[in-house]
Amino acid sequence: MPATCERRVRGLYAVVPAGGAGTRLWPLSRANNPKFLLDLAGTGRSLLQETFARLRPLVGADRIVVVTGASHAEGVSAQLSELTPANLLLEPTPRDSTAAIGLAAAVLVRRDPEATVGSFAADHVIADTAAFEAAVLEAVATAEAGYVVTVGVQPTYAATAYGYIESGTSLGVDGAASALAVKRFVEKPDAETAAGYLRRGVFRWNAGMFVARADVLLNHLARHQPQLYDGISEIADAWERQDRDDVMARRWPALTRIAIDYAIAEPVAAEGGFAVIPADIGWDDIGDVVALAGILGGPGGVQILGDRSQVLTVDSTGLVAQHGSRTVSLLGVRDVAVIDTDDAVLVTTMADSQRVKDLVSRWRERGRADLL
Amino acid sequence: MPATCERRVRGLYAVVPAGGAGTRLWPLSRANNPKFLLDLAGTGRSLLQETFARLRPLVGADRIVVVTGASHAEGVSAQLSELTPANLLLEPTPRDSTAAIGLAAAVLVRRDPEATVGSFAADHVIADTAAFEAAVLEAVATAEAGYVVTVGVQPTYAATAYGYIESGTSLGVDGAASALAVKRFVEKPDAETAAGYLRRGVFRWNAGMFVARADVLLNHLARHQPQLYDGISEIADAWERQDRDDVMARRWPALTRIAIDYAIAEPVAAEGGFAVIPADIGWDDIGDVVALAGILGGPGGVQILGDRSQVLTVDSTGLVAQHGSRTVSLLGVRDVAVIDTDDAVLVTTMADSQRVKDLVSRWRERGRADLL
Repeated sequence: MPATCERRVRGLYAVVPAGGAGTRLWPLSRANNPKFLLDLAGTGRSLLQETFARLRPLVGADRIVVVTGASHAEGVSAQLSELTPANLLLEPTPRDSTAAIGLAAAVLVRRDPEATVGSFAADHVIADTAAFEAAVLEAVATAEAGYVVTVGVQPTYAATAYGYIESGTSLGVDGAASALAVKRFVEKPDAETAAGYLRRGVFRWNAGMFVARADVLLNHLARHQPQLYDGISEIADAWERQDRDDVMARRWPALTRIAIDYAIAEPVAAEGGFAVIPADIGWDDIGDVVALAGILGGPGGVQILGDRSQVLTVDSTGLVAQHGSRTVSLLGVRDVAVIDTDDAVLVTTMADSQRVKDLVSRWRERGRADLL
Repeated sequence: MPATCERRVRGLYAVVPAGGAGTRLWPLSRANNPKFLLDLAGTGRSLLQETFARLRPLVGADRIVVVTGASHAEGVSAQLSELTPANLLLEPTPRDSTAAIGLAAAVLVRRDPEATVGSFAADHVIADTAAFEAAVLEAVATAEAGYVVTVGVQPTYAATAYGYIESGTSLGVDGAASALAVKRFVEKPDAETAAGYLRRGVFRWNAGMFVARADVLLNHLARHQPQLYDGISEIADAWERQDRDDVMARRWPALTRIAIDYAIAEPVAAEGGFAVIPADIGWDDIGDVVALAGILGGPGGVQILGDRSQVLTVDSTGLVAQHGSRTVSLLGVRDVAVIDTDDAVLVTTMADSQRVKDLVSRWRERGRADLL
């Protein structure tokens, strides 16, 4: 397919960290059936499959690496027939995003010393693929100039559920006219602060996408997280050897658990080494049922995930996630979310969507690990 | 059991019309799994079984007759091991309550010319059994004096979902000090009228219980509904003969469909032949989910029908009907009713409980007879 091949970005490898249960989307998402394996957009493909399909034209199927928990190996392989075993990196236990992305970079740089890595979450949606591709092209050009680069999503409202990126001056990188210096990363703000960010115009949402030359990324890691770097390096050195599992078993569990935002993004931004490509790509992390209703975005008052013919709603608004052959009927309920699964039905409101994780904690306290 | 036998009322046969799907309790109740076969009070016994157990000490198991649709024969027999085949009267099709009760009276009077029949719905609850028994004793004494008698339930609020009975003067019947003449039966009133009834003190709820000598009841039927009387008499004449089914097939489908309230109660009350025993028996017809929540009546904000350990509620009020091994979680929802069944989940509000039947109609219009 020449059209696709032409768009491929030379030297880029896509790293897809596939972790996190998506607790606020319980009972749709579970520890053993995490968010990234679910078809939450109602497209007939899971979020992971959508992510793979989005990256494939940019880098080619053989340059997409998925990093996931060992327990999800089967689920991921079953969904991604084009993913080669060599490109499926399995974590024995979760050690957060720095370990996951760092390991992928360390393994890839040993396969290809010129590798540029782009990390893209497995469980987000991006509505405007063309804008995403254009942003990645600029990110790669900026990464080649030595920066760690993120795609900063143009805010459409004063979100309090996302971290923000404050941009500075233009970097004047060839092939990346949009590239701006990152002044700082800021954590989820309160509503007032978020409103201020929206007004000032130099803040974008942190969508957790990072692009960098593998050697640049690993250098930053060596300086800011030497223990992590050492562990990852030893594991990567052993990756193609017989003793990989032994080294993994010895070093992995002791790796520092830290998100890449803290390990790399904040300190490197402070050093002037981080860039942002502002982009309007229709991004959403589907963090809760409100976001889920937003991306389903059908007409009328009740958004439906599942078989519409199995759902009947009268004088109601909200969201229904229908399952299997069971019908769901709503009568006279407003702004509700009804999530039906084999073993759990959840009825809540849009306003309570962020508290679903507390409900999951309550089931855990009751000893119901089977539901988590 | 002497204690039980002592309470038996001489000459009384209990007739239990078991019909009606209970559409407002959908999806708990269905055409093929009607309300009377369900354990709605959470007692471990169905409403029919509770009714049978309530009547058994009064009349003995061999004097309880159940009239139900042929399609429910199996369900009824399975639930009532003490019900003899001779006491299970099957209707080929529903012909309303006059045909059902009239047939039972006609069959019973041929078995026992002295029979007094008491008709008691299969799907109501009565909390105060002792008060119920006392009322029935008075009703039988009043019936022996030639009246058709109803037990009038003391209203506890200005209900608009029930018909009312207006009482007149005391009848001075031996053994029935409470017996009053019935002035008239009135249909479900509006809220203002109901409030007036409550204030005036001479109105009771019509709980659909009727007690009369079988010969008296049949005489009234012969005068007010001669076509119905003729049909029922011919069927009853053939009841113990080989050609019962033939006669049934010929006469039953042509019987007038009319409720006993219109066929007997209203005209006989107008003639001065109807009596009422006012009683405070904790009666409820469980007509909708609000009533269901009321009879479950546990502490706290969410009433639960089913396995409480499978239900988790946070900041919520209302009703959950849990089913099988599936869990139900409520978070931040107020005055909701969540009914979970194998093939249908309903989420509605207490305020909309009377409209559930409209929802059922919508599923019917969609061709989903399987859900009805």
